Amino acid sequence: MEILFYAAGANPDAWLTSIQQAIPDASIRVWQEGDHAPADVALVWKPPAAMLRGRTELKAIFNLGAGVDAILQLGEALPAGVPVVRLDDAGMGIQMAEFVAHAVLRYFRRLDAYAVQHQAQQWRFLKPFDKQTFSVGVLGMGVLGSRIAAALQHFDFPVLGWSRTQKNIPGMTCFSGADGLNTFLSQTRVLVCILPLTTETENILNHATLSALPRGAYVINVARGAHLVEADLLTLIQQEHIAGATLDVFREEPLPVTHPFWQEPRINITPHISALTLRDDSARQIAAKIKALQAGQPITGLVDPQRGY
Amino acid sequence: MEILFYAAGANPDAWLTSIQQAIPDASIRVWQEGDHAPADVALVWKPPAAMLRGRTELKAIFNLGAGVDAILQLGEALPAGVPVVRLDDAGMGIQMAEFVAHAVLRYFRRLDAYAVQHQAQQWRFLKPFDKQTFSVGVLGMGVLGSRIAAALQHFDFPVLGWSRTQKNIPGMTCFSGADGLNTFLSQTRVLVCILPLTTETENILNHATLSALPRGAYVINVARGAHLVEADLLTLIQQEHIAGATLDVFREEPLPVTHPFWQEPRINITPHISALTLRDDSARQIAAKIKALQAGQPITGLVDPQRGY
Repeated sequence: MEILFYAAGANPDAWLTSIQQAIPDASIRVWQEGDHAPADVALVWKPPAAMLRGRTELKAIFNLGAGVDAILQLGEALPAGVPVVRLDDAGMGIQMAEFVAHAVLRYFRRLDAYAVQHQAQQWRFLKPFDKQTFSVGVLGMGVLGSRIAAALQHFDFPVLGWSRTQKNIPGMTCFSGADGLNTFLSQTRVLVCILPLTTETENILNHATLSALPRGAYVINVARGAHLVEADLLTLIQQEHIAGATLDVFREEPLPVTHPFWQEPRINITPHISALTLRDDSARQIAAKIKALQAGQPITGLVDPQRGY
Repeated sequence: MEILFYAAGANPDAWLTSIQQAIPDASIRVWQEGDHAPADVALVWKPPAAMLRGRTELKAIFNLGAGVDAILQLGEALPAGVPVVRLDDAGMGIQMAEFVAHAVLRYFRRLDAYAVQHQAQQWRFLKPFDKQTFSVGVLGMGVLGSRIAAALQHFDFPVLGWSRTQKNIPGMTCFSGADGLNTFLSQTRVLVCILPLTTETENILNHATLSALPRGAYVINVARGAHLVEADLLTLIQQEHIAGATLDVFREEPLPVTHPFWQEPRINITPHISALTLRDDSARQIAAKIKALQAGQPITGLVDPQRGY
């Protein structure tokens, strides 16, 4: 078993240790420019086109994360017929649930406003929001979106879900498709974006969709920066149609120092930390999938390039 | 059914509406100085001694909150033999769970540190904490403490509980009594205080107990200000033994403007809002308990004055 590895921006040593532990009999090499020697599988995060072009010998390309947009953007450089496999949850679902639950609770319990009062040394009671009107709409009901929804249901928030294809999940109202989107938005007080980035979902958070949210709504984006038309969000916050936003992802990362988001106190900024790929969990998951592929068994997480995820 | 009502600091009109709705055949009057006319039951929050002294005709005194410390402090002014009944959960458990889960997630995900970086326009990744070492210890495992523990278990935190008498709760390690307290504290990374205030628990968060927490621990107090020796907490924060505290209750409320807590950025201050008594829920609960008492049936929430809650 020859494994070809490349992870942009990551420390390869720690990854190699985790992978070797999960697949003891594998020979693993880090891809370098000019390496055209064959391999059995590739484990990649944001790989360059030159790494994968023409590698039709691969049994599979494993993405070291949930979002496969960076791989699919390689287009014709992706070897035809080689399955691309994304990570299933691998510990990311609970991290997303933690991050989003924190943000929703912060808005619902007005802890952002209490923090401002604290700074001013003010002791003042604020009228609580009514939970029945504080519905959370989860845009993207895959593995991660479902885990987020479960956390919000634990706290008895009304939870709505929207996905490309209709889902049925106990205790929540599910919408789908372009027709369902407007109804979903009109009933959503806190919008959580956890969609895959595809040509269909790029710019899905724009002036028209954000305006369809009720006045005073909040936006939480933990998916990809390219889902959001950033200027539209700013305009709607300045017009007080959107009350606040929690953004962990941006069109350009790191967020440039001159970006106007830094100057808007109603936007909370974190540096793309809502869910980290856990190396050991991921390596174990990939090891199990390699075994299943070798045994001719079906695996989860197979990417459909047409669909985009 | 004659109901005598008094709630310090609350708007009586809203309460009277809720109570009348829950007990349509009741005649309700707000107690005034000098009112010695008989009544069947009293509904009170922080009542003056003069209201209750000698009222042996009462069938029960209902406390409009979870903590009965203000009633029991009346001592000999409490009419002998009249049962004191505290509210069961009445919507407070989930509010406590929301507030505490928010604070724990904030510490665990280092969102307090990310907020500081945001202020400085810094985009910088911080090493995450390991959840297996981020155990949360709940001091007080009654109705409210149990609901808090359930929320933390939802996010897979290791949860420990301490109570006066030993409890057995699935999925968590329970400690009890003076002997168990030190072991409990030594294994607790985030300490949550939700104890009733009694002569035994007053000042329970002091230099000795807070020092028994591991270095870098956090303290969350949602019970009563008198549980905490405030100067001891400040000292231990300044010595960096305690990494931060989230305090919703204080020995003096409103927290005086000159109080040093305002100047310590590692202390989060909220104005006693972690759980509000919900009027309609409470009135319905009290109505059901009055019916049960009239029918000679047992009720929950009976206070043991010796025990103090």
